[in-house]
Amino acid sequence: MPTWPITFDDVIAARARLAPHLSPTPLRHYPALDEAVGHGIKVWVKHENHQPTNAFKVRNGLAALTALPDEQRARGVIAATRGNYGQGLAWAGRLLGIPVTVCVPVGNSPDKNRAMIDLGAELVESGRDYDASVVVAENLASERGLTIIHSTNHCEVIAGAGTIALEMAENGPELDALVMAVGGGSQAVGALTVMRHLRPEVSVYGAQAANAPAIYDSWVAGKELSTDSADTFADGIATRHCYAFTFAALREGLADFVTATEAEIAAAIRLYLSCTHNLAEGAGAVSLAGLCALGERLAGKTVGIILSGANIDGEMLTRVLDGSL
Amino acid sequence: MPTWPITFDDVIAARARLAPHLSPTPLRHYPALDEAVGHGIKVWVKHENHQPTNAFKVRNGLAALTALPDEQRARGVIAATRGNYGQGLAWAGRLLGIPVTVCVPVGNSPDKNRAMIDLGAELVESGRDYDASVVVAENLASERGLTIIHSTNHCEVIAGAGTIALEMAENGPELDALVMAVGGGSQAVGALTVMRHLRPEVSVYGAQAANAPAIYDSWVAGKELSTDSADTFADGIATRHCYAFTFAALREGLADFVTATEAEIAAAIRLYLSCTHNLAEGAGAVSLAGLCALGERLAGKTVGIILSGANIDGEMLTRVLDGSL
Repeated sequence: MPTWPITFDDVIAARARLAPHLSPTPLRHYPALDEAVGHGIKVWVKHENHQPTNAFKVRNGLAALTALPDEQRARGVIAATRGNYGQGLAWAGRLLGIPVTVCVPVGNSPDKNRAMIDLGAELVESGRDYDASVVVAENLASERGLTIIHSTNHCEVIAGAGTIALEMAENGPELDALVMAVGGGSQAVGALTVMRHLRPEVSVYGAQAANAPAIYDSWVAGKELSTDSADTFADGIATRHCYAFTFAALREGLADFVTATEAEIAAAIRLYLSCTHNLAEGAGAVSLAGLCALGERLAGKTVGIILSGANIDGEMLTRVLDGSL
Repeated sequence: MPTWPITFDDVIAARARLAPHLSPTPLRHYPALDEAVGHGIKVWVKHENHQPTNAFKVRNGLAALTALPDEQRARGVIAATRGNYGQGLAWAGRLLGIPVTVCVPVGNSPDKNRAMIDLGAELVESGRDYDASVVVAENLASERGLTIIHSTNHCEVIAGAGTIALEMAENGPELDALVMAVGGGSQAVGALTVMRHLRPEVSVYGAQAANAPAIYDSWVAGKELSTDSADTFADGIATRHCYAFTFAALREGLADFVTATEAEIAAAIRLYLSCTHNLAEGAGAVSLAGLCALGERLAGKTVGIILSGANIDGEMLTRVLDGSL
């Protein structure tokens, strides 16, 4: 793999394919959030929670499926997911008439499973976590002749994610920095690709859950490391490995990388609720938690963060609100 | 006042004034919500929670201020509010450079007060409830030479609210019915104005909080009644009176009118969370609570409801989630 899996033109092309189906999302500023974050930081929130399926992954799924040749469309696609990517892929599959199979680990969020089924996907529950579901998906793809659309290791997926930063760069305020949640890295590598081309002065930071730090650990060590578990309630970024299509670009491009504890992620969800009255799931608040962790290092800067997704269930939200998380 | 305070053309004109500043909101369908509502009802949710300020009232405020002559713009405007309308008006005022003063009752939501101040409004806290704040606003308007933009008794406000139904009628699925929350009635009378013209076959239902039932009581009695209190956590619709610009149209136009208890409104918030992963405040869920109350009377129908607003605070949300509301 080259260091940079996609070019800026790939993002432009992805946007053209998405445009008939997805509206740009708002980028909004909340003085109450600035005050809570402190250090004179001005925060702009990209509302990917407004997407159908309440998460940016719908960009990734649609970008991949719209680029697929007819013959592969007809046979159908398969992917591993914790839910948001699967919902995005299923949404795109329903739109385009492409059969979608999603592989989730045992014990995955019932709400997310239900949402994928409601969007017409076939659901396969197997394996102990996301990375185990990837193996399940690979085996089923061979058996059934399906095309794998990996949630990270796929150029069009990353190009789709890059359209978020493209909207921010073209229509937003002058940003000094972005803080991006890293699960596989599509969002961050998409943003790096865009900003290197359009706004090279913008620093892009990564943030991962401290309980699922494989890419963070690898980034710090300068070599690919895995973890034995990825036990975070931010299930959308609960990964145990680096990914071939994104790691080198993250290494080269990120200005820095931080982690957020479970408590810090929960606090970020509460901040979104109190300062913006928007709902975030764990993964959806990691970008804000990372910004808070960076804190005074971004003093006085104008910073863009991403709110995505919002697919938290009631029990988890109760634990977030009562402070037990 | 004539029975119908505005015409369909007023709504078309309001949309033209809003279009440069506000994008149409999505209208979405959730199979899990259909299942929860039951009776074979297909539910389409209009996402007014996606508006800046998280509520449809931004349409009302912007429609009123864009119609204002320059001389009145320069002097500034004033209105009573519990928060969502005030945020909408303040948002529009900031956009257009018009000074906005908002009058709220003592003990109003601190989050909503803060949001109005953040949008540049001058906040006046006085009176025991919304209707008392209306009197405060009227007195201040005289003292200071400000223009009152009443949250209901104002043609352009109602025309602004009508743009919601216009988007639903023009771009949505074939609807059999709408269920609209009634606080002052701008949303419902706006929708009735649109549907009578474009889709006379669509039945429009009203829903009010059982703890603030002045307009419901009046509608049933056929004459204007007031209540002594409006003690509902759905503060956005906590009104004690009928309003001159909407009551006759509600009387003539609504197919029926229902009320929802505090527990039913809280249950509707939980339904939105579990079935759509969107946040609603009390007033924002009354349309869904009303749909649930109508239940089998809408069996097999395709029904549009409005999710607006989302400005619930953490303490209230905790009570909704733990079932104590």
